[in-house]
Amino acid sequence: MFRKEIKVLDCTIRDGGLINNYQFTEKFVKAVYAAICDSGVDIIELGKKLMASEQYPTSKFGPWNYCDEELLKRIVGSYQGKYKPQLAVMYDIGRIDLDGLLPKKDSVVDMIRTACYVPQVDKGLDVVKRCKDKGYLTTLNIMAVSAAIETDVIEALEAVAKVPEMDYLYLVDSYGSYYSEQITHMLKLYSQYIPVEKLGFHGHNNQQLGFSNTQQCIIEGVNLLDATINGIGRGAGNCCLELLLGFLKNPKFDVRPIYKVIQEEFVPLRKEIEWGYNDIYGISGVLNQHPREAMEFRSHKQKQDHCLDFYDYVTRQDVNVE
Amino acid sequence: MFRKEIKVLDCTIRDGGLINNYQFTEKFVKAVYAAICDSGVDIIELGKKLMASEQYPTSKFGPWNYCDEELLKRIVGSYQGKYKPQLAVMYDIGRIDLDGLLPKKDSVVDMIRTACYVPQVDKGLDVVKRCKDKGYLTTLNIMAVSAAIETDVIEALEAVAKVPEMDYLYLVDSYGSYYSEQITHMLKLYSQYIPVEKLGFHGHNNQQLGFSNTQQCIIEGVNLLDATINGIGRGAGNCCLELLLGFLKNPKFDVRPIYKVIQEEFVPLRKEIEWGYNDIYGISGVLNQHPREAMEFRSHKQKQDHCLDFYDYVTRQDVNVE
Repeated sequence: MFRKEIKVLDCTIRDGGLINNYQFTEKFVKAVYAAICDSGVDIIELGKKLMASEQYPTSKFGPWNYCDEELLKRIVGSYQGKYKPQLAVMYDIGRIDLDGLLPKKDSVVDMIRTACYVPQVDKGLDVVKRCKDKGYLTTLNIMAVSAAIETDVIEALEAVAKVPEMDYLYLVDSYGSYYSEQITHMLKLYSQYIPVEKLGFHGHNNQQLGFSNTQQCIIEGVNLLDATINGIGRGAGNCCLELLLGFLKNPKFDVRPIYKVIQEEFVPLRKEIEWGYNDIYGISGVLNQHPREAMEFRSHKQKQDHCLDFYDYVTRQDVNVE
Repeated sequence: MFRKEIKVLDCTIRDGGLINNYQFTEKFVKAVYAAICDSGVDIIELGKKLMASEQYPTSKFGPWNYCDEELLKRIVGSYQGKYKPQLAVMYDIGRIDLDGLLPKKDSVVDMIRTACYVPQVDKGLDVVKRCKDKGYLTTLNIMAVSAAIETDVIEALEAVAKVPEMDYLYLVDSYGSYYSEQITHMLKLYSQYIPVEKLGFHGHNNQQLGFSNTQQCIIEGVNLLDATINGIGRGAGNCCLELLLGFLKNPKFDVRPIYKVIQEEFVPLRKEIEWGYNDIYGISGVLNQHPREAMEFRSHKQKQDHCLDFYDYVTRQDVNVE
C-alpha cells in the first residue's frame, strides 16, 4: 500500500507566507510545527532565508522571510515530543547572504532549497554547491518551467546533471497549468538527466490538480513531495497535506494532528486571508499564466468573482502578438 | 489536441438540484440552458423525472424533480439560437411512471439516464429496455460501486452486457473516493463487459479529484463525460464544466458563455447555497463513505468547519466491526 522511500515536505509556512508577507504569529508557527511533528511528516520548511534589503525591509516583511537562527531554535525547542522532522528553509537567488550562512553543525536547519527560474540555473547551482560545502542537504527548485522554452529547460538540466552537490531537483508547477500527461512528459525529460529517485514535485492548485498531479508523480517514481496544510499557499494554493497523507497510507503518518491544527488555527485564519481554488485562478491555470494578474483581480472586493470580466481581460484580442 | 468522439453532458440542474430540492427558478434554468447551447456542449440534463408520491410530494420538491413535458418545452423554446444540445432526464428506480412516459417522437427529451445501485441493476436494465422501446437514448448509471463487493459488480456487469438496449454504461464515483489508478482498474473491469466507447463517467469532488479522474477516463478511452457548471452538485460537487472544456480544446466548445452564466447567476447563488470541496467532504472521500454524514455535519453552522471533531466521529473506535 505504500512506498517507504517517499518523503513528504510540508511548506505551509513558506508558501503560506507568500499571502500574508510572512506575518504568521510565533504561536501559529509553533502549532503548525507541533502538528507536523505529531503527524510524522518528514521535512518542514519554515520560511525563506533572505537578506534584509531595500526591496525586502524587515519593517515590511515578517520574520519567516528571514528565518533567523534564534527564531528557528525557539520553534524547534517549543516541541517536547520525541520525533522531529528535518528543517528546511528556502533561498531566492540574488537575495541571500551566503557568507553569513552558518555551517550545518551550528544550525538547526538541515536542508536549504534554492528557488530559481530557468535562466538562473547556473546561479542556483552555485548556491547549491556552497550550501553543500557547509554541510546542508540541498534542493534546486526550478520555477515556471511550464512557461519556458523546452530547449532552455534541457540546457538547464544538462547543467544540473553535472552538480553532484544537489541532492534533489524539483519539478515545480508554478502556474498550476500541467495536466497529468504533461507531468509524465516532464518527469521523463527530467529523468534523462537526474535519476527519478532524486526528483521532487511542488504543485499548485489552479485547476484543482495539485493533489492529483502529486499522485501522478508518485506513480512515475518521484519520492519527495511538497504539500501544505489545508493547501495554503499563493493564489490557488498547493496540494493539501491532509489529502496526501490519506492517500499515502504509510503507517508512520498520522493525519489526525493535521485536522486538529486546521480546526484550531486554520479555520480562524481563513477569516483573515484567502487561499484556494476559485474561477479566477482556474482561468490563469488553463492559460498557463503567472498568477499575478489573478491575484491583483482577486484583491478588488467588488469584482473579485467576475470571472467573465477576468476571462475577457486575459484573452482580449489586443494581446495577440502575431 | 482533441478526440472528436468525446461528448460532454452537463448535469448542472440535475445534480445541483440535489442541494436545493430542485427549487431553481425558471429564469435560472433558462440562463443555464442558454449557456450550454452557446458553449456547444453535447447534452444537458435538466432534472429527474420522478413520479409524485407521499415520499416525493410536489409541495416539497421543486419542478426539476418531475420535469413535466410542458416545463421542458418552455426551457427549450426559450432559446432562439441555432444549436441545441440533446436533452436528458434521470430516472431513479422505484420512483418512476414508465406507463406515463411519452414516446420519444412526442417529447423534447432525447436521453433517459437510469440511476441504480448494484443490487438494483436488473430493475435498472428493465427500465432501460422500456425507455429504448419508446425510442430514447439510454444510459445506466450504477452508483456507489466503490462501496460494493467486486464480485457483485462483476455479476451486474454480466447482466448489463446482455442488454443491447443500453447505449451507455456509467462508472459513477458517488463518494469521490477513487484515485486515478482505481479509475483505471474499474474501467479495465467494465470494459471486459462493455466496449470502452460505450462507457461514461460521473465523478465527485470530495478529494479534489473530480476533474483529474475525468481526465483519467479520457486517457483510458471513455467518450461520455459528466460535468456541472462551477462544479455544483451534492456535497463536494462534481467536475467543473469550465475546467473540462478548457482541457478538451475541441473547437466546437466555447467556454466563455459558461463564465458568463457563472458571473451572472452562480456568483449570487453561492450566497444562498453551498457546494464544493471542504475538509469535511475530503474526510468522507478518503474514507469512501456516503456523504450523508458529512452533509448533516455541514448543516450545523456552529460546527461545520470542525474537521477534527468530524474525523474523530467517523473514525471512532466504537464503529470497529471486527
